[in-house]
Amino acid sequence: MAQIDPAFLKTSEALGELPLSHVRLHADARFAWIVLIPRLAGARELEDLSSAARAQLMEEIVLASDAVRAVGQAIGRPSGKINVGQLGNITPQLHVHVVGRGPDDPAWPGPVWGFGEAEAYGPEDLAAATAAAKAALGL
Amino acid sequence: MAQIDPAFLKTSEALGELPLSHVRLHADARFAWIVLIPRLAGARELEDLSSAARAQLMEEIVLASDAVRAVGQAIGRPSGKINVGQLGNITPQLHVHVVGRGPDDPAWPGPVWGFGEAEAYGPEDLAAATAAAKAALGL
Repeated sequence: MAQIDPAFLKTSEALGELPLSHVRLHADARFAWIVLIPRLAGARELEDLSSAARAQLMEEIVLASDAVRAVGQAIGRPSGKINVGQLGNITPQLHVHVVGRGPDDPAWPGPVWGFGEAEAYGPEDLAAATAAAKAALGL
Repeated sequence: MAQIDPAFLKTSEALGELPLSHVRLHADARFAWIVLIPRLAGARELEDLSSAARAQLMEEIVLASDAVRAVGQAIGRPSGKINVGQLGNITPQLHVHVVGRGPDDPAWPGPVWGFGEAEAYGPEDLAAATAAAKAALGL
């Protein structure tokens, strides 16, 4: 079982556990944004997962996409597009970003990674986002 | 069978066909970079593919990662890290980027999407990159 890199603990809130991955809400109110962290110690790339685990990760990405759309509705930032990214250039522990996007978001049409500074959630929006995400994820 | 958006034809070179996807070398000599385009008309998001097609796409991403490493070796830009992205904010046809990254690349550690201007391949490097990619892909 992998420990979660402290970098994620500082920048996101736990939503719960899917069969393969920890699921976290990325704490940036500019975007509806979920991070999946497969629970395999030492994994850095998709090739470090078994083929079966990769298929499961893909299904968790699609489930997280639904959750991102629900978060977007909850915080008044509807997501017309989903962006998925597996980078890890800064935090090497394998993780996948699932982010709601649209022409009204501040980084559109560029990528969100490294774009400006995160904006803290207010407590009401954080509660609404978390509740919406958990409901969509079945958590 | 999906037609390939002309935007891809202008910015990449065909490498061949995998069971699910067209495979193309992105024509930017700054990075070892492959684009997968699943052959399903109208697909824009991962959720538009069946679960079986998504599992296949994941395997093609891992195969493309090997090819990206081979391209990096061939053009003298070894890839210590792989970045995978499914964005589609500008070109909506479903496609997945698989990109070799490292501390020596010009965009490191930020994302490659939208970063500066593409650099044309010279003919020798293009031939070497294409040959290395095809060999790694079994094409």
